[in-house]
Amino acid sequence: MDAMGVAARRAARSLAMVDGERRDRALRMTATCMREQCSDILAANAVDMSAATASDLSPSMRDRLMLDADRVESMASSLEAIAELRDPLGRVLSEWQRPNGLQIQRVTVPLGVIGIIYESRPNVTSDAAGLCIKSGNAVILRGGSESFHSNHAIHACLKTGLEAAAIDIDAVQIVPTTDRAAVGHMLSSMGDSIDVVVPRGGKDLIRRVKDEARVPVIGHLEGICHVYLHEAADTEMARQIVVNAKMRRTGVCGAAETILVDRGAAQRLLPVVVTALQDAGCEVRGDETVASMVAGVAGAEERDWATEYLDAIVSIRVVADIEAAIGHIGQYGSGHTECIVTGDDAAAEHFFRNVDSAILMQNASTQFADGGEFGMGAEIGIATGRIHARGPVGAEQLTSYKYIVRGSGQVRP
Amino acid sequence: MDAMGVAARRAARSLAMVDGERRDRALRMTATCMREQCSDILAANAVDMSAATASDLSPSMRDRLMLDADRVESMASSLEAIAELRDPLGRVLSEWQRPNGLQIQRVTVPLGVIGIIYESRPNVTSDAAGLCIKSGNAVILRGGSESFHSNHAIHACLKTGLEAAAIDIDAVQIVPTTDRAAVGHMLSSMGDSIDVVVPRGGKDLIRRVKDEARVPVIGHLEGICHVYLHEAADTEMARQIVVNAKMRRTGVCGAAETILVDRGAAQRLLPVVVTALQDAGCEVRGDETVASMVAGVAGAEERDWATEYLDAIVSIRVVADIEAAIGHIGQYGSGHTECIVTGDDAAAEHFFRNVDSAILMQNASTQFADGGEFGMGAEIGIATGRIHARGPVGAEQLTSYKYIVRGSGQVRP
Repeated sequence: MDAMGVAARRAARSLAMVDGERRDRALRMTATCMREQCSDILAANAVDMSAATASDLSPSMRDRLMLDADRVESMASSLEAIAELRDPLGRVLSEWQRPNGLQIQRVTVPLGVIGIIYESRPNVTSDAAGLCIKSGNAVILRGGSESFHSNHAIHACLKTGLEAAAIDIDAVQIVPTTDRAAVGHMLSSMGDSIDVVVPRGGKDLIRRVKDEARVPVIGHLEGICHVYLHEAADTEMARQIVVNAKMRRTGVCGAAETILVDRGAAQRLLPVVVTALQDAGCEVRGDETVASMVAGVAGAEERDWATEYLDAIVSIRVVADIEAAIGHIGQYGSGHTECIVTGDDAAAEHFFRNVDSAILMQNASTQFADGGEFGMGAEIGIATGRIHARGPVGAEQLTSYKYIVRGSGQVRP
Repeated sequence: MDAMGVAARRAARSLAMVDGERRDRALRMTATCMREQCSDILAANAVDMSAATASDLSPSMRDRLMLDADRVESMASSLEAIAELRDPLGRVLSEWQRPNGLQIQRVTVPLGVIGIIYESRPNVTSDAAGLCIKSGNAVILRGGSESFHSNHAIHACLKTGLEAAAIDIDAVQIVPTTDRAAVGHMLSSMGDSIDVVVPRGGKDLIRRVKDEARVPVIGHLEGICHVYLHEAADTEMARQIVVNAKMRRTGVCGAAETILVDRGAAQRLLPVVVTALQDAGCEVRGDETVASMVAGVAGAEERDWATEYLDAIVSIRVVADIEAAIGHIGQYGSGHTECIVTGDDAAAEHFFRNVDSAILMQNASTQFADGGEFGMGAEIGIATGRIHARGPVGAEQLTSYKYIVRGSGQVRP
């Protein structure tokens, strides 16, 4: 592990000097290789999948692990989308001149070496490596043991892409063991060779990383996302957004978990929304008001408001007004993504100003909380912390900066 | 301590809603109060100073602790300079529209609650609190025990300023004990109420904070700053910059510790520069080439290149060329501030691109590495890490952001 760290640091130094065109070429050549080697990648994935079946991995975990030709194509096009983005390095973020004549610029540079610790989804291997290459960072990947063979097949294409662009292949390394101790070592003893760790996976993984890490961490704990149906919400729009936010994919962190309905619109909206959710196969748990207004609603308990179901279950609460909605989100939310459905832009502005979450939306599904949907090509994760990056973490968020000061002999009085 | 944390979190929520004009008024009223209460502040400082004398505090520590009318005026004008800066909150950092019509903005918000752990300098109390108020953050201050009375007298003015602007006075709290266990508690058990800790002080303090912190830390370890005299350096400019960078104040982190001299200019530059340093009272330690060329130079040992003297001592090395200078800085530097003295702009650009430090300068003293000199009004410290902030940390660096997404009913396919 320590040798990987040294190699990563060396590769980071040389990658930081590689121009954007060559970094983009590595991404495009990796995409080409993934298409050419698709059958090899699928064969490696089949090995992982049969081990997963033998070890009784849950259906949702198996779905995350499974690759097919479409998913490989999707990984390849993500890499090409990342290559299309503007170069995040060498950008002048701001510049100014001091009264003494000093000219100061703040210019973006890579972070250095990034450690990614993730679970079953093999696409993280290419998405994360692609964003790191784009932003000039070396990366040490530590995927889940269940996706070991898939990750190595994808990594082979990344090496091909790096070689084709004459970039040090140690810029993308993958931990060659499934030993859990390797994660502990990355978190506690590699502070000199890893600048930041990004965990990507379930709550237990993230918590372990946050507890053990002696290096900076960018990550998110939970996505308890809310949709608030304001008094001025259009009924049909409310129905469509709620069903999509909850049910499009229930296992993603941007899935809505709680719907707040303004008392002034409850009679109009609740029957429509609850029926639509139930028709889509969602279990609805509501407070007393909801249960009294529509049939088939189980009683929500206090803990429901604080639960990230990641499943076809939703909790619904009637709130007195927008202040009560904001208060509920402040108390139970996880600072990820919240949506207000309203035709009243002033209400939306009030909501934007007073709710403190990474992403706030008006009249759009919370499932848009995604780096790709934000135009970042892909994402390395969604940060719910407040330090360094917040929300979707793309290539631009994987940069730091340095100051360039040009003088003409100034000394300080 | 935990009650302080709860109060700080509550104050942070309300301060985040206060407009910029009121935050600036709090700063200006604090400055006015400090001028009016100058004699009270000096009396409190006299209590600290006599305790410092009794406990044999070192002269440099006593100098940091000491206040006089000029230093109080300087604290007050720093607060006014901070008030003059543009509001760092609510700024649209970038905005774009997606093909599906979603409009996305990234808008600055406060970080939340900031913990500052610092040593003897009482001006940190007003500088740090001022930058936090400006950026809408609540702050918990934990100053050194030796400046206890001075800090409380300054804090009294901060409370007066906050009250005059009708801001919750718990936005600026000071730990009311000198018990060292309070620092441990802040670092390890207040993750829910402190978003980031900024240590400001000597190496031992910073190391303790980095080792014990279970919350994010923005800080710097050392300032081993270099001045590289390139072949195309003007002799007189080189002399002035070296003497200023080393000797203006030897105890600041931006003071130069090592001078690298290009072999091609050594005969021209070394006698002038070494004599000027010696005349200014500086002990010069040089490699063999330096010792052979000028008199009165002690031999530098390997460890000299890695030492932050913070004193009137300098190490000087002759390097073969700019690559050797860049290599030396990469090996021994601490990533703080480095300067190249040269009339050759292409050489400076090469230096800027290939040296990875927070601040890189051409033809200016490294002692300009300072938030005030950068136009930030003051600084809460200089970050040598790469996460979140790098270089001088001012009000803008104490912000995070959130995404605002405006739609018209979009759902994700």
